[in-house]
Amino acid sequence: VEGLPEIAPGSDLAATISAALQHAGAKVTGGDVLVIAHKVVSKAEGRVRALSDVRPSRGAQDLAAALGKDPRHVQVVLDESRLVLRASNGVLISVTHQGFVCANAGVDASNVPGEDTVLMLPRDPDASARALRRGLCELTGACTAVVITDSFGRAWRHGQCDIAVGCAGISPLEDWRGRTDATGRELKATWIAVADELAAAADLARTKDGRQPVVLVRGADRHVIADDGPGAAALIRPEAEDLFR
Amino acid sequence: VEGLPEIAPGSDLAATISAALQHAGAKVTGGDVLVIAHKVVSKAEGRVRALSDVRPSRGAQDLAAALGKDPRHVQVVLDESRLVLRASNGVLISVTHQGFVCANAGVDASNVPGEDTVLMLPRDPDASARALRRGLCELTGACTAVVITDSFGRAWRHGQCDIAVGCAGISPLEDWRGRTDATGRELKATWIAVADELAAAADLARTKDGRQPVVLVRGADRHVIADDGPGAAALIRPEAEDLFR
Repeated sequence: VEGLPEIAPGSDLAATISAALQHAGAKVTGGDVLVIAHKVVSKAEGRVRALSDVRPSRGAQDLAAALGKDPRHVQVVLDESRLVLRASNGVLISVTHQGFVCANAGVDASNVPGEDTVLMLPRDPDASARALRRGLCELTGACTAVVITDSFGRAWRHGQCDIAVGCAGISPLEDWRGRTDATGRELKATWIAVADELAAAADLARTKDGRQPVVLVRGADRHVIADDGPGAAALIRPEAEDLFR
Repeated sequence: VEGLPEIAPGSDLAATISAALQHAGAKVTGGDVLVIAHKVVSKAEGRVRALSDVRPSRGAQDLAAALGKDPRHVQVVLDESRLVLRASNGVLISVTHQGFVCANAGVDASNVPGEDTVLMLPRDPDASARALRRGLCELTGACTAVVITDSFGRAWRHGQCDIAVGCAGISPLEDWRGRTDATGRELKATWIAVADELAAAADLARTKDGRQPVVLVRGADRHVIADDGPGAAALIRPEAEDLFR
């Protein structure tokens, strides 16, 4: 979706997206999925901090020195973290208050206006997705699914893939366990992270300097549901099942 | 791509895919990407084992008892593994000889004919991708990119996403590090696992019981390259950088 203006704290994101869709001549239907980079959601929600206002603790200063990072940035990461899992090789991996395991607690400085500003993840990305879906439904008349994304690195693989941090109106996981394959054999472990695959697919449709935070995905109707659904929280593996803390 | 027949050891997969594309009326071009589930590649390469021929070692028997698995299946997993990382909660995570960190070393029993047969990853999936690309290029006249996929679980998230185990003719990673975002700020860590995102996108276009191992992806031309490129091996994080062994 082209032509979205810069989003500021307090922006009505649903109205802005709806206007951009209309301007692009894209008529959305209830089977469509709007995949939205969390940055515009976080900006609209005012989830920004000015580094000049951050007073790093002694712990943040020590960690920043060890990692070669800005101590104020590290302080914001610590504020967004429930638990630090790894801090080495210049990398800080933590569990965020939302339960995500990722680098720098999702605190990011790119595509944020102002040298001094960092952006945090939405406080409750599933609630953000639900609110956006409701707003878009009222404005466009079509209750599209909403997926809010971020780019996450992976433990054993280079590079980042976009994943779903929040969603509404879509089944985040497609469960084939107990169903059968094309040969009639039972599928024992097949459980597809559909919301994450939608996030990854949408990321291919934009560039990192293109100001295209919103991607309209068509043809995924079979994953779209009438209610909000369990959200992307359902994609988080509980700590008790986590073998890699 | 509909209408692919069952693939057997020794099948000429490039010829089979080329015929299916022709039958589907899909004219491929050099900017297209063919995303291919590893299962058909593994079958064509004879990367199958009959469990009745497997003699589990004492170690495999002990591990199988602890995990509640078939000891012969565990033996195949061990044969495919360089190193076992975790064995608990019924889950066996290892580093494969190809360097992948995944569950059960990619050894799989679904969508394989015969109750008794398991399927392994291609021995060198990048070489498989290069050979397929060469074969398809000769048969179709268009040197499409080839991505060979498998479904991998993730350490901290539920469900599986398809990822690239092999590729040819595509840049597996898009490096934005040192380039600038839409605000002119330098991107410090942005390095996109394009081949994995293509694998995930293609997985959305098929179902697990649909006999659709091949998906034709259009519109990703900017990632397609003239030579084979570094392959999906470039996506593997080296052990020295791995914080989660």
